[in-house]
Amino acid sequence: MVKVLIHGCNGRMGQMVTGLIREDEQAEVVAGVDTFTATENTYPVFENIQLCDVKPDVVIDFSNAAAVEGLLDYCTANQVPVVLCTTGLSKEQLGKVQETSGETAVLKSANMSMGINLLLKMLKDAARILAPAGYDIELVERHHNQKLDAPSGTAMALADSMNDALNHEYTYVYDRSQVRRKRDKKEMGISAVRGGTIVGDHEVIFAGPDEVIEFKHTAYSRSVFGKGAVEAAKFLAGKPAGMYDMSDVIQL
Amino acid sequence: MVKVLIHGCNGRMGQMVTGLIREDEQAEVVAGVDTFTATENTYPVFENIQLCDVKPDVVIDFSNAAAVEGLLDYCTANQVPVVLCTTGLSKEQLGKVQETSGETAVLKSANMSMGINLLLKMLKDAARILAPAGYDIELVERHHNQKLDAPSGTAMALADSMNDALNHEYTYVYDRSQVRRKRDKKEMGISAVRGGTIVGDHEVIFAGPDEVIEFKHTAYSRSVFGKGAVEAAKFLAGKPAGMYDMSDVIQL
Amino acid sequence: MVKVLIHGCNGRMGQMVTGLIREDEQAEVVAGVDTFTATENTYPVFENIQLCDVKPDVVIDFSNAAAVEGLLDYCTANQVPVVLCTTGLSKEQLGKVQETSGETAVLKSANMSMGINLLLKMLKDAARILAPAGYDIELVERHHNQKLDAPSGTAMALADSMNDALNHEYTYVYDRSQVRRKRDKKEMGISAVRGGTIVGDHEVIFAGPDEVIEFKHTAYSRSVFGKGAVEAAKFLAGKPAGMYDMSDVIQL
Amino acid sequence: MVKVLIHGCNGRMGQMVTGLIREDEQAEVVAGVDTFTATENTYPVFENIQLCDVKPDVVIDFSNAAAVEGLLDYCTANQVPVVLCTTGLSKEQLGKVQETSGETAVLKSANMSMGINLLLKMLKDAARILAPAGYDIELVERHHNQKLDAPSGTAMALADSMNDALNHEYTYVYDRSQVRRKRDKKEMGISAVRGGTIVGDHEVIFAGPDEVIEFKHTAYSRSVFGKGAVEAAKFLAGKPAGMYDMSDVIQL
Repeated sequence: MVKVLIHGCNGRMGQMVTGLIREDEQAEVVAGVDTFTATENTYPVFENIQLCDVKPDVVIDFSNAAAVEGLLDYCTANQVPVVLCTTGLSKEQLGKVQETSGETAVLKSANMSMGINLLLKMLKDAARILAPAGYDIELVERHHNQKLDAPSGTAMALADSMNDALNHEYTYVYDRSQVRRKRDKKEMGISAVRGGTIVGDHEVIFAGPDEVIEFKHTAYSRSVFGKGAVEAAKFLAGKPAGMYDMSDVIQL
Repeated sequence: MVKVLIHGCNGRMGQMVTGLIREDEQAEVVAGVDTFTATENTYPVFENIQLCDVKPDVVIDFSNAAAVEGLLDYCTANQVPVVLCTTGLSKEQLGKVQETSGETAVLKSANMSMGINLLLKMLKDAARILAPAGYDIELVERHHNQKLDAPSGTAMALADSMNDALNHEYTYVYDRSQVRRKRDKKEMGISAVRGGTIVGDHEVIFAGPDEVIEFKHTAYSRSVFGKGAVEAAKFLAGKPAGMYDMSDVIQL
Repeated sequence: MVKVLIHGCNGRMGQMVTGLIREDEQAEVVAGVDTFTATENTYPVFENIQLCDVKPDVVIDFSNAAAVEGLLDYCTANQVPVVLCTTGLSKEQLGKVQETSGETAVLKSANMSMGINLLLKMLKDAARILAPAGYDIELVERHHNQKLDAPSGTAMALADSMNDALNHEYTYVYDRSQVRRKRDKKEMGISAVRGGTIVGDHEVIFAGPDEVIEFKHTAYSRSVFGKGAVEAAKFLAGKPAGMYDMSDVIQL
Repeated sequence: MVKVLIHGCNGRMGQMVTGLIREDEQAEVVAGVDTFTATENTYPVFENIQLCDVKPDVVIDFSNAAAVEGLLDYCTANQVPVVLCTTGLSKEQLGKVQETSGETAVLKSANMSMGINLLLKMLKDAARILAPAGYDIELVERHHNQKLDAPSGTAMALADSMNDALNHEYTYVYDRSQVRRKRDKKEMGISAVRGGTIVGDHEVIFAGPDEVIEFKHTAYSRSVFGKGAVEAAKFLAGKPAGMYDMSDVIQL
């Protein structure tokens, strides 16, 4: 049973992680830390991590940039691995993260979703096998109507992951309405659909002769990141010092 | 039992229509016309329609522009309705089609597929109801890698059909990668995916708050046009003179 | 501007409706009623509806069975139409709902989702047109792994809606693994997929010769019911006494 | 340039393979064998393989069981690798195939599709990673209305492939309409949709907390088997004696 401390346990993500671990047979929450202490939990909650008298196997952090520094000190001092999900860290803070990884195991990833990280790996193989056999690669992503950027960062990461496996020979095409010509073999079309409150769908299409192979990921809420954090924590407990990311958790 | 004459019966589409009517309990082929007469059929085949001594209830035409004029003369003279599927008619020939419709029933449509024509009608209603309630409309089409134009004519027809129902207030957006901004309420995104030998997929998406409604059409081969022609023929037999199209066949 | 009173304004659904109306240009919340009054709102909240001194054009109710009776008295006395979304009413309470509809407009529906109600209507037409032309009808639904019943009530409602339009000639098939035989023309296959936390997907497939037409509905959360309630309220304001349901809101 | 001999070159599959190799930059057809010799080809065609005076690097066979024995003799005598796509071989013939593989490279596979074989491999990894993390696995397949068996052999192969990777702990569930209970963690639902002329769709769904990952394969015609045969031939040319299958061609 992996003993988890949730840093930022009473925020939305912290509570979600609490719920996910309650269902998990291989992990349990032994303590939480949060400045807001009114929420009722089945585990003890401390106002800051220095007050915590329970020794966890691993920390899951969904707090805020200001609280991360104290957390890193604690992890170094107590040799506790940490899954760091707080974003928006400053350059200095990122430097400190790096330092901490010299003393204990630290896991940090651009996207914490299990599904996206699995696809990032598998699509490399699919591209390496199918592209030389003449299959065309296309991506379609869908997000809500408030999103500013297009295509999504995750779509670009998926495309780059495949392009890596293809010696960067492919160019990305975002619009086909302006020219009248056949598709080039070495292009990847990337389309961005926007509407409603869609959390995030990503679809990668390999189209060959009379055959289509599709890999699709649908997120229904931000809790996909919580799930990834729990799997990362179970993986990280007991690991030696060093920087890790989600690709280490997913070993094909 | 509707008696059908297939004009151009030994071409690829003519043979497909032959097969479809063989399975149909409400229609039978009583004669065929084709300059190429070597194919074996279960019905008599004549080299040109003037030689035909069997009186059909309706003609399905999948021949070529040159043969259409003789066919129109025959249909006028014998008061036989005709489903005209030959494309590429000249301006003069189109004029003659119009004239013929003053004498007998003539059905002609840009796209003969039952499914696409059904969607063209239904999407008007869906757009009229969902757009004012705040649902965003997006289209994604997929075609093979040899197609020159994008988006497809059918995608544009579907978009126009909805825009008609929305007082033409919507503008079409083909590329979102060049600007950083939220989606406008009055835009329809239209994305074109190209790859492999995909015959033609069209997907219309209505995205609202935590809800997505999708209408999708997949064509597996050109035989979808044959199927539409058979349904059109059964509809047209016995109808008064006039110009018809597939929207008359599909009555919601 | 339609003036809405939200009955049960501080529950999860009440707060969601509050948010949806904030974005709506044709409606505004003028008052709320809730026994729990701690939530901050931009409108006055009363502990029970008898205390309310604001006259709305329509009430949206997401409270509980116990509170519904007082609400119905208020609506009758003040001639205020009401969208009734509370479920689990007793036989007596349902009788009172019926009585109330003799005095003012009452809207009540098994499923409040706009999308599902639109499909319930459209699928009747699609079935009526495509089934006689030889297209086979199949349904696939997906729900979370905690759901007890299968297929879902909504899947059965969609199937029944189509079967109504087909003179009830179709039988439902839930399992094809036990027999070795071709599909019968007059069957509808209904498949139930269960997994994860899927809120509810419904897919209706019309499969013809080399052509597939699909209608798909995806719910991302229960807020789809809130959205339907808001549209119902805008429709119901000003309507004469009587029982209404979502099919009245959606007029093809 | 891999020199290919097509055994059974004038049948439907043989002609399709001819077309596929015409587009392929790494292979060319140097000869064909067919008892029916009327078809015009750009390569010499022999009535039987003993008459063939061109030495290929590899043979692709889409002939018939009766012709296979002569082919195997030829391949042994001339040390030519062979991709064997003819089905319905007798026990004796299968024995002879085995013997031949002692002398030269022989490739034979239950399903020749590149896409299905890629999925067979990838799904093992996906199942191994996602199932222990609590993701539920479900399959949905779609086929035409003339198919006698359900679920399809390919669906069962995909399920078995995943179950292999999960220590055979999962049981298959084909019908959920007869019981009222929650889904068991260790079940895989397998649903079979039947309709129209659908060639063959297979969809594998991993459903976790607020996340769905899907792998989908769509076949548009039997030419997917031709494509697989061409890739297999390019792989097999120059390989040592032995039995191979499509999983050797696809190396993750």
